[in-house]
Amino acid sequence: MCRGLLEGSILKRAQDKGLAELEAVDLRQWAVDKHRTTDDTPYGGGPGMVMKIEPIYRALQELRTPDTKVVLMTPQGRPFQQRIAEEYREVSHIVMICGHYEGVDQRVADHLVDDEISIGDYVLTNGALAALVVTDAIVRLIPGVLGDADSAVQDSFSTGVLDHPHFTRPEVFNGWSVPDVLMSGNHAAIEKWRRQRALDLTRERRPDLLG
Amino acid sequence: MCRGLLEGSILKRAQDKGLAELEAVDLRQWAVDKHRTTDDTPYGGGPGMVMKIEPIYRALQELRTPDTKVVLMTPQGRPFQQRIAEEYREVSHIVMICGHYEGVDQRVADHLVDDEISIGDYVLTNGALAALVVTDAIVRLIPGVLGDADSAVQDSFSTGVLDHPHFTRPEVFNGWSVPDVLMSGNHAAIEKWRRQRALDLTRERRPDLLG
Repeated sequence: MCRGLLEGSILKRAQDKGLAELEAVDLRQWAVDKHRTTDDTPYGGGPGMVMKIEPIYRALQELRTPDTKVVLMTPQGRPFQQRIAEEYREVSHIVMICGHYEGVDQRVADHLVDDEISIGDYVLTNGALAALVVTDAIVRLIPGVLGDADSAVQDSFSTGVLDHPHFTRPEVFNGWSVPDVLMSGNHAAIEKWRRQRALDLTRERRPDLLG
Repeated sequence: MCRGLLEGSILKRAQDKGLAELEAVDLRQWAVDKHRTTDDTPYGGGPGMVMKIEPIYRALQELRTPDTKVVLMTPQGRPFQQRIAEEYREVSHIVMICGHYEGVDQRVADHLVDDEISIGDYVLTNGALAALVVTDAIVRLIPGVLGDADSAVQDSFSTGVLDHPHFTRPEVFNGWSVPDVLMSGNHAAIEKWRRQRALDLTRERRPDLLG
Protein backbone atom coordinates (compact mmCIF):
# COMPACT_ATOMS: atom_id res chain seq x y z
CA MET A 1 0.00 0.00 0.00
CA CYS A 2 2.80 2.39 0.86
CA ARG A 3 5.08 1.34 -1.95
CA GLY A 4 3.85 3.80 -4.59
CA LEU A 5 4.56 6.72 -2.32
CA LEU A 6 7.78 5.44 -0.78
CA GLU A 7 9.13 4.65 -4.24
CA GLY A 8 7.83 7.80 -5.90
CA SER A 9 7.53 11.44 -4.99
CA ILE A 10 9.96 13.36 -2.83
CA LEU A 11 10.30 10.33 -0.56
CA LYS A 12 12.11 8.44 -3.30
CA ARG A 13 14.39 11.38 -4.00
CA ALA A 14 15.30 11.69 -0.32
CA GLN A 15 16.20 8.02 -0.17
CA ASP A 16 18.20 8.11 -3.42
CA LYS A 17 20.24 10.97 -2.00
CA GLY A 18 20.87 9.00 1.20
CA LEU A 19 19.03 11.61 3.26
CA ALA A 20 16.35 9.31 4.64
CA GLU A 21 15.66 5.60 5.00
CA LEU A 22 11.99 4.67 4.82
CA GLU A 23 10.49 1.26 5.32
CA ALA A 24 6.95 -0.08 5.61
CA VAL A 25 6.86 -3.24 7.70
CA ASP A 26 4.00 -5.68 8.13
CA LEU A 27 3.01 -6.17 11.75
CA ARG A 28 1.98 -9.75 11.01
CA GLN A 29 5.60 -10.88 11.16
CA TRP A 30 5.46 -10.30 14.93
CA ALA A 31 2.13 -12.04 15.46
CA VAL A 32 2.37 -14.88 17.95
CA ASP A 33 -0.15 -17.41 16.67
CA LYS A 34 -0.08 -19.51 13.53
CA HIS A 35 -2.84 -17.48 11.87
CA ARG A 36 -0.70 -14.34 12.26
CA THR A 37 -3.53 -12.56 14.02
CA THR A 38 -2.99 -8.91 14.82
CA ASP A 39 -6.52 -8.05 15.96
CA ASP A 40 -9.28 -9.50 18.10
CA THR A 41 -12.80 -8.67 19.34
CA PRO A 42 -13.20 -5.91 21.94
CA TYR A 43 -13.58 -6.61 25.64
CA GLY A 44 -16.97 -5.32 26.76
CA GLY A 45 -18.53 -6.12 23.39
CA GLY A 46 -19.46 -3.92 20.46
CA PRO A 47 -18.69 -3.85 16.74
CA GLY A 48 -15.28 -3.64 15.10
CA MET A 49 -11.98 -5.28 15.91
CA VAL A 50 -9.15 -4.08 18.12
CA MET A 51 -5.45 -4.36 17.34
CA LYS A 52 -3.63 -6.56 19.84
CA ILE A 53 -0.79 -5.33 22.00
CA GLU A 54 1.46 -8.39 21.69
CA PRO A 55 2.57 -8.03 18.04
CA ILE A 56 3.20 -4.32 18.58
CA TYR A 57 5.18 -5.02 21.75
CA ARG A 58 7.33 -7.59 19.96
CA ALA A 59 7.85 -5.32 16.96
CA LEU A 60 9.05 -2.51 19.19
CA GLN A 61 11.39 -4.83 21.09
CA GLU A 62 13.08 -5.51 17.78
CA LEU A 63 12.89 -2.03 16.21
CA ARG A 64 13.39 0.37 19.09
CA THR A 65 16.85 1.87 19.61
CA PRO A 66 17.90 4.32 22.34
CA ASP A 67 17.19 7.17 19.88
CA THR A 68 13.82 5.94 18.62
CA LYS A 69 10.62 7.92 19.01
CA VAL A 70 7.57 5.66 18.79
CA VAL A 71 4.46 7.39 17.49
CA LEU A 72 0.94 5.99 17.43
CA MET A 73 -1.17 7.35 14.56
CA THR A 74 -4.62 7.82 16.10
CA PRO A 75 -7.58 10.21 15.95
CA GLN A 76 -7.11 10.63 19.72
CA GLY A 77 -3.61 12.04 19.22
CA ARG A 78 -2.41 15.63 19.27
CA PRO A 79 -3.28 17.41 16.03
CA PHE A 80 -0.36 17.34 13.60
CA GLN A 81 0.96 20.78 12.70
CA GLN A 82 3.95 22.21 10.89
CA ARG A 83 5.58 22.86 14.28
CA ILE A 84 5.47 19.10 15.03
CA ALA A 85 7.02 18.27 11.63
CA GLU A 86 9.87 20.64 12.52
CA GLU A 87 10.24 18.96 15.91
CA TYR A 88 10.42 15.49 14.32
CA ARG A 89 12.93 16.57 11.70
CA GLU A 90 15.52 16.48 14.53
CA VAL A 91 14.70 12.88 15.49
CA SER A 92 17.05 10.27 14.04
CA HIS A 93 14.71 7.25 14.17
CA ILE A 94 10.93 7.24 14.16
CA VAL A 95 8.60 4.23 14.29
CA MET A 96 4.98 4.99 13.39
CA ILE A 97 2.33 2.50 14.45
CA CYS A 98 -0.61 2.41 12.06
CA GLY A 99 -4.00 1.03 13.02
CA HIS A 100 -6.42 -0.46 10.56
CA TYR A 101 -10.03 0.84 10.61
CA GLU A 102 -10.50 -0.07 14.25
CA GLY A 103 -9.03 0.79 17.59
CA VAL A 104 -5.67 -0.20 19.00
CA ASP A 105 -5.53 -1.79 22.46
CA GLN A 106 -5.30 1.17 24.83
CA ARG A 107 -2.31 -0.35 26.65
CA VAL A 108 -0.20 0.42 23.57
CA ALA A 109 -0.86 4.16 23.99
CA ASP A 110 -0.52 3.95 27.77
CA HIS A 111 2.76 2.03 27.96
CA LEU A 112 4.55 1.63 24.64
CA VAL A 113 4.59 4.89 22.74
CA ASP A 114 6.25 8.29 23.11
CA ASP A 115 3.65 10.29 21.23
CA GLU A 116 0.18 10.05 19.68
CA ILE A 117 -0.56 12.03 16.53
CA SER A 118 -3.71 12.73 14.51
CA ILE A 119 -3.47 14.32 11.06
CA GLY A 120 -6.95 15.83 11.28
CA ASP A 121 -10.51 15.58 12.55
CA TYR A 122 -11.70 12.93 10.14
CA VAL A 123 -11.81 9.16 10.08
CA LEU A 124 -9.51 7.13 7.81
CA THR A 125 -9.63 3.40 7.19
CA ASN A 126 -5.93 3.10 7.70
CA GLY A 127 -3.28 4.79 9.80
CA ALA A 128 -0.73 4.11 7.05
CA LEU A 129 -2.15 6.99 5.05
CA ALA A 130 -1.70 9.25 8.08
CA ALA A 131 1.87 7.96 8.54
CA LEU A 132 2.65 8.77 4.89
CA VAL A 133 1.36 12.32 5.34
CA VAL A 134 3.50 12.84 8.44
CA THR A 135 6.51 11.26 6.73
CA ASP A 136 6.20 13.54 3.71
CA ALA A 137 5.88 16.64 5.91
CA ILE A 138 8.98 15.69 7.92
CA VAL A 139 11.20 14.44 5.09
CA ARG A 140 10.76 17.58 2.96
CA LEU A 141 12.29 19.57 5.84
CA ILE A 142 15.54 17.58 5.85
CA PRO A 143 18.22 19.86 4.37
CA GLY A 144 19.03 18.83 0.80
CA VAL A 145 15.78 17.00 0.09
CA LEU A 146 14.09 19.86 -1.73
CA GLY A 147 15.95 21.58 -4.56
CA ASP A 148 17.18 25.13 -4.04
CA ALA A 149 14.28 26.58 -5.97
CA ASP A 150 11.73 24.87 -3.78
CA SER A 151 13.30 24.97 -0.38
CA ALA A 152 13.03 28.71 0.02
CA VAL A 153 9.34 28.82 -0.81
CA GLN A 154 7.46 30.65 1.89
CA ASP A 155 4.99 27.98 2.62
CA SER A 156 1.73 28.34 4.42
CA PHE A 157 2.05 27.62 8.15
CA SER A 158 5.86 27.92 8.28
CA THR A 159 5.26 31.65 8.61
CA GLY A 160 2.15 31.42 10.77
CA VAL A 161 -0.17 32.76 8.05
CA LEU A 162 -1.57 31.33 4.84
CA ASP A 163 0.52 31.70 1.70
CA HIS A 164 -0.09 34.65 -0.63
CA PRO A 165 -1.62 34.07 -4.08
CA HIS A 166 0.68 32.97 -6.93
CA PHE A 167 0.39 33.75 -10.63
CA THR A 168 2.33 32.61 -13.69
CA ARG A 169 2.04 32.93 -17.47
CA PRO A 170 -0.06 33.81 -19.40
CA GLU A 171 -0.70 37.37 -18.26
CA VAL A 172 -4.30 37.15 -19.45
CA PHE A 173 -6.20 33.89 -19.76
CA ASN A 174 -9.86 33.70 -20.69
CA GLY A 175 -10.16 37.40 -19.80
CA TRP A 176 -8.69 36.86 -16.32
CA SER A 177 -5.63 39.05 -15.65
CA VAL A 178 -2.64 38.90 -13.34
CA PRO A 179 -2.72 41.76 -10.77
CA ASP A 180 -0.88 44.81 -12.13
CA VAL A 181 1.45 45.13 -9.17
CA LEU A 182 3.08 41.77 -9.99
CA MET A 183 4.02 43.10 -13.45
CA SER A 184 5.36 46.39 -12.08
CA GLY A 185 8.93 45.32 -11.38
CA ASN A 186 8.66 47.26 -8.11
CA HIS A 187 9.96 44.68 -5.66
CA ALA A 188 9.05 46.63 -2.53
CA ALA A 189 5.47 47.06 -3.78
CA ILE A 190 5.27 43.36 -4.69
CA GLU A 191 6.54 42.35 -1.25
CA LYS A 192 4.01 44.61 0.42
CA TRP A 193 1.13 43.33 -1.74
CA ARG A 194 2.05 39.72 -0.97
CA ARG A 195 2.26 40.30 2.78
CA GLN A 196 -1.04 42.13 2.76
CA ARG A 197 -2.85 39.51 0.69
CA ALA A 198 -1.49 36.70 2.89
CA LEU A 199 -2.74 38.51 5.96
CA ASP A 200 -6.15 39.31 4.39
CA LEU A 201 -6.61 35.71 3.31
CA THR A 202 -5.69 34.42 6.76
CA ARG A 203 -8.07 36.87 8.47
CA GLU A 204 -10.86 35.92 6.11
CA ARG A 205 -10.44 32.14 6.06
CA ARG A 206 -8.46 31.15 9.12
CA PRO A 207 -8.65 33.78 11.84
CA ASP A 208 -7.79 30.97 14.28
CA LEU A 209 -4.20 30.94 12.94
CA LEU A 210 -3.69 34.56 13.97
CA GLY A 211 -4.51 33.71 17.56
CA MET B 1 2.39 7.49 -6.90
CA CYS B 2 -1.27 6.86 -6.13
CA ARG B 3 -1.34 3.35 -7.52
CA GLY B 4 -0.40 1.50 -4.33
CA LEU B 5 -3.27 3.08 -2.46
CA LEU B 6 -5.84 2.98 -5.25
CA GLU B 7 -5.03 -0.68 -5.86
CA GLY B 8 -4.80 -1.66 -2.21
CA SER B 9 -6.64 -0.85 0.96
CA ILE B 10 -10.33 -0.13 1.21
CA LEU B 11 -10.18 1.83 -2.04
CA LYS B 12 -9.52 -1.36 -3.97
CA ARG B 13 -12.35 -3.14 -2.20
CA ALA B 14 -14.78 -0.32 -3.01
CA GLN B 15 -13.84 -0.49 -6.69
CA ASP B 16 -14.04 -4.29 -6.83
CA LYS B 17 -17.55 -4.09 -5.42
CA GLY B 18 -18.48 -1.48 -8.03
CA LEU B 19 -19.19 1.11 -5.33
CA ALA B 20 -16.61 3.66 -6.49
CA GLU B 21 -14.51 4.44 -9.53
CA LEU B 22 -11.15 6.01 -8.77
CA GLU B 23 -8.61 7.26 -11.24
CA ALA B 24 -5.38 9.22 -10.97
CA VAL B 25 -4.73 11.21 -14.13
CA ASP B 26 -1.56 13.02 -15.16
CA LEU B 27 -2.12 16.69 -15.85
CA ARG B 28 0.65 16.63 -18.46
CA GLN B 29 -1.71 15.14 -21.02
CA TRP B 30 -3.48 18.51 -21.14
CA ALA B 31 -0.31 20.60 -21.38
CA VAL B 32 -0.24 22.80 -24.45
CA ASP B 33 3.45 22.93 -25.39
CA LYS B 34 5.69 20.19 -26.71
CA HIS B 35 7.60 19.92 -23.41
CA ARG B 36 4.32 19.17 -21.63
CA THR B 37 4.95 21.97 -19.17
CA THR B 38 2.49 22.29 -16.30
CA ASP B 39 4.36 24.90 -14.24
CA ASP B 40 6.25 28.14 -14.77
CA THR B 41 8.08 30.84 -12.75
CA PRO B 42 6.00 33.22 -10.62
CA TYR B 43 5.06 36.71 -11.79
CA GLY B 44 6.60 39.20 -9.42
CA GLY B 45 9.63 36.97 -8.82
CA GLY B 46 10.61 34.76 -5.94
CA PRO B 47 11.54 31.09 -5.49
CA GLY B 48 9.50 28.05 -6.47
CA MET B 49 7.34 27.30 -9.44
CA VAL B 50 3.64 27.90 -10.02
CA MET B 51 1.23 25.52 -11.69
CA LYS B 52 -0.24 26.95 -14.87
CA ILE B 53 -3.94 27.49 -15.40
CA GLU B 54 -4.13 26.29 -19.02
CA PRO B 55 -3.60 22.53 -18.50
CA ILE B 56 -6.04 22.59 -15.58
CA TYR B 57 -8.61 24.49 -17.63
CA ARG B 58 -8.31 22.00 -20.49
CA ALA B 59 -8.50 19.04 -18.13
CA LEU B 60 -11.69 20.35 -16.58
CA GLN B 61 -13.24 21.02 -19.98
CA GLU B 62 -12.81 17.32 -20.67
CA LEU B 63 -13.60 15.91 -17.22
CA ARG B 64 -16.35 18.13 -15.86
CA THR B 65 -19.94 16.93 -16.09
CA PRO B 66 -23.07 18.76 -14.85
CA ASP B 67 -22.76 16.82 -11.57
CA THR B 68 -19.04 17.32 -11.00
CA LYS B 69 -17.65 19.08 -7.96
CA VAL B 70 -14.14 20.38 -8.63
CA VAL B 71 -11.97 20.61 -5.52
CA LEU B 72 -8.56 22.24 -5.26
CA MET B 73 -6.33 20.65 -2.62
CA THR B 74 -4.53 23.60 -1.03
CA PRO B 75 -3.27 24.73 2.38
CA GLN B 76 -5.43 27.84 1.83
CA GLY B 77 -8.61 25.74 1.70
CA ARG B 78 -11.22 25.08 4.35
CA PRO B 79 -9.99 22.56 6.90
CA PHE B 80 -11.19 19.07 6.04
CA GLN B 81 -13.42 17.53 8.71
CA GLN B 82 -15.62 14.50 9.05
CA ARG B 83 -18.64 16.70 8.29
CA ILE B 84 -17.13 17.55 4.87
CA ALA B 85 -16.50 13.87 4.12
CA GLU B 86 -20.19 13.24 4.83
CA GLU B 87 -21.14 16.12 2.55
CA TYR B 88 -19.00 14.75 -0.30
CA ARG B 89 -20.33 11.24 0.07
CA GLU B 90 -23.49 12.53 -1.63
CA VAL B 91 -21.62 13.89 -4.66
CA SER B 92 -21.60 11.60 -7.69
CA HIS B 93 -18.45 12.92 -9.39
CA ILE B 94 -15.50 14.67 -7.78
CA VAL B 95 -12.36 15.98 -9.49
CA MET B 96 -9.52 16.83 -7.12
CA ILE B 97 -6.75 19.09 -8.39
CA CYS B 98 -3.40 18.35 -6.75
CA GLY B 99 -0.55 20.82 -6.73
CA HIS B 100 3.07 19.81 -6.56
CA TYR B 101 5.24 21.49 -3.84
CA GLU B 102 4.48 24.97 -5.15
CA GLY B 103 1.52 27.22 -5.66
CA VAL B 104 -1.24 26.93 -8.23
CA ASP B 105 -2.09 29.98 -10.34
CA GLN B 106 -4.66 31.87 -8.27
CA ARG B 107 -7.04 32.14 -11.22
CA VAL B 108 -7.71 28.40 -10.84
CA ALA B 109 -9.11 28.94 -7.34
CA ASP B 110 -10.88 32.14 -8.38
CA HIS B 111 -12.63 30.86 -11.51
CA LEU B 112 -12.42 27.10 -12.01
CA VAL B 113 -13.15 25.30 -8.78
CA ASP B 114 -16.17 24.71 -6.55
CA ASP B 115 -14.29 24.20 -3.32
CA GLU B 116 -10.82 24.44 -1.76
CA ILE B 117 -9.81 21.93 0.90
CA SER B 118 -6.84 21.58 3.23
CA ILE B 119 -6.28 18.36 5.17
CA GLY B 120 -4.36 20.12 7.95
CA ASP B 121 -2.03 22.90 9.01
CA TYR B 122 1.15 21.41 7.64
CA VAL B 123 3.01 21.54 4.34
CA LEU B 124 3.13 18.54 2.00
CA THR B 125 5.22 18.18 -1.15
CA ASN B 126 2.27 16.93 -3.08
CA GLY B 127 -1.46 17.49 -3.09
CA ALA B 128 -1.96 13.90 -4.27
CA LEU B 129 -1.34 12.69 -0.74
CA ALA B 130 -4.04 15.08 0.49
CA ALA B 131 -6.40 13.87 -2.25
CA LEU B 132 -5.84 10.26 -1.19
CA VAL B 133 -6.67 11.13 2.42
CA VAL B 134 -9.89 12.86 1.40
CA THR B 135 -10.77 10.01 -0.98
CA ASP B 136 -10.29 7.41 1.75
CA ALA B 137 -12.42 9.38 4.21
CA ILE B 138 -15.24 9.75 1.68
CA VAL B 139 -15.18 6.26 0.16
CA ARG B 140 -15.39 4.49 3.52
CA LEU B 141 -18.73 6.25 4.10
CA ILE B 142 -20.34 4.81 0.96
CA PRO B 143 -22.85 2.18 2.11
CA GLY B 144 -21.48 -1.33 1.52
CA VAL B 145 -17.81 -0.38 1.40
CA LEU B 146 -17.04 -1.30 4.99
CA GLY B 147 -18.07 -4.73 6.26
CA ASP B 148 -20.87 -4.95 8.81
CA ALA B 149 -18.47 -5.40 11.68
CA ASP B 150 -16.63 -2.19 10.83
CA SER B 151 -19.36 0.08 9.64
CA ALA B 152 -21.06 0.41 12.97
CA VAL B 153 -17.90 1.40 14.81
CA GLN B 154 -18.46 4.60 16.70
CA ASP B 155 -15.58 6.47 15.24
CA SER B 156 -13.99 9.57 16.62
CA PHE B 157 -15.47 12.76 15.15
CA SER B 158 -18.65 11.11 13.79
CA THR B 159 -20.05 11.55 17.27
CA GLY B 160 -18.44 14.90 18.01
CA VAL B 161 -16.13 13.52 20.68
CA LEU B 162 -13.01 11.36 20.61
CA ASP B 163 -13.47 7.62 20.63
CA HIS B 164 -13.37 5.73 23.94
CA PRO B 165 -10.44 3.39 24.71
CA HIS B 166 -10.51 -0.15 23.30
CA PHE B 167 -9.09 -3.32 24.79
CA THR B 168 -8.76 -6.89 23.54
CA ARG B 169 -7.07 -10.10 24.63
CA PRO B 170 -5.05 -10.87 26.68
CA GLU B 171 -6.67 -9.71 29.90
CA VAL B 172 -3.26 -9.08 31.46
CA PHE B 173 -0.16 -8.36 29.44
CA ASN B 174 3.18 -7.50 31.00
CA GLY B 175 1.34 -6.68 34.23
CA TRP B 176 -1.05 -4.27 32.48
CA SER B 177 -4.73 -5.17 32.99
CA VAL B 178 -7.96 -4.51 31.14
CA PRO B 179 -10.32 -2.30 33.24
CA ASP B 180 -12.57 -4.47 35.42
CA VAL B 181 -15.79 -2.95 34.15
CA LEU B 182 -15.16 -4.30 30.63
CA MET B 183 -15.02 -7.83 32.05
CA SER B 184 -18.18 -7.38 34.16
CA GLY B 185 -20.75 -8.39 31.54
CA ASN B 186 -22.84 -5.43 32.76
CA HIS B 187 -23.69 -3.75 29.48
CA ALA B 188 -25.21 -0.63 31.01
CA ALA B 189 -22.10 -0.10 33.15
CA ILE B 190 -19.84 -0.67 30.11
CA GLU B 191 -21.81 1.84 28.05
CA LYS B 192 -21.61 4.39 30.83
CA TRP B 193 -17.85 3.86 31.31
CA ARG B 194 -17.22 4.26 27.58
CA ARG B 195 -19.24 7.45 27.31
CA GLN B 196 -17.51 8.89 30.36
CA ARG B 197 -14.00 7.98 29.18
CA ALA B 198 -14.71 9.42 25.70
CA LEU B 199 -15.88 12.65 27.27
CA ASP B 200 -12.93 12.80 29.72
CA LEU B 201 -10.46 12.19 26.92
CA THR B 202 -12.03 14.86 24.74
CA ARG B 203 -12.04 17.39 27.62
CA GLU B 204 -8.42 16.63 28.40
CA ARG B 205 -6.99 16.54 24.87
CA ARG B 206 -9.39 18.35 22.57
CA PRO B 207 -11.59 20.76 24.51
CA ASP B 208 -11.98 22.62 21.19
CA LEU B 209 -14.20 19.78 19.89
CA LEU B 210 -16.71 20.32 22.71
CA GLY B 211 -16.99 23.99 21.74
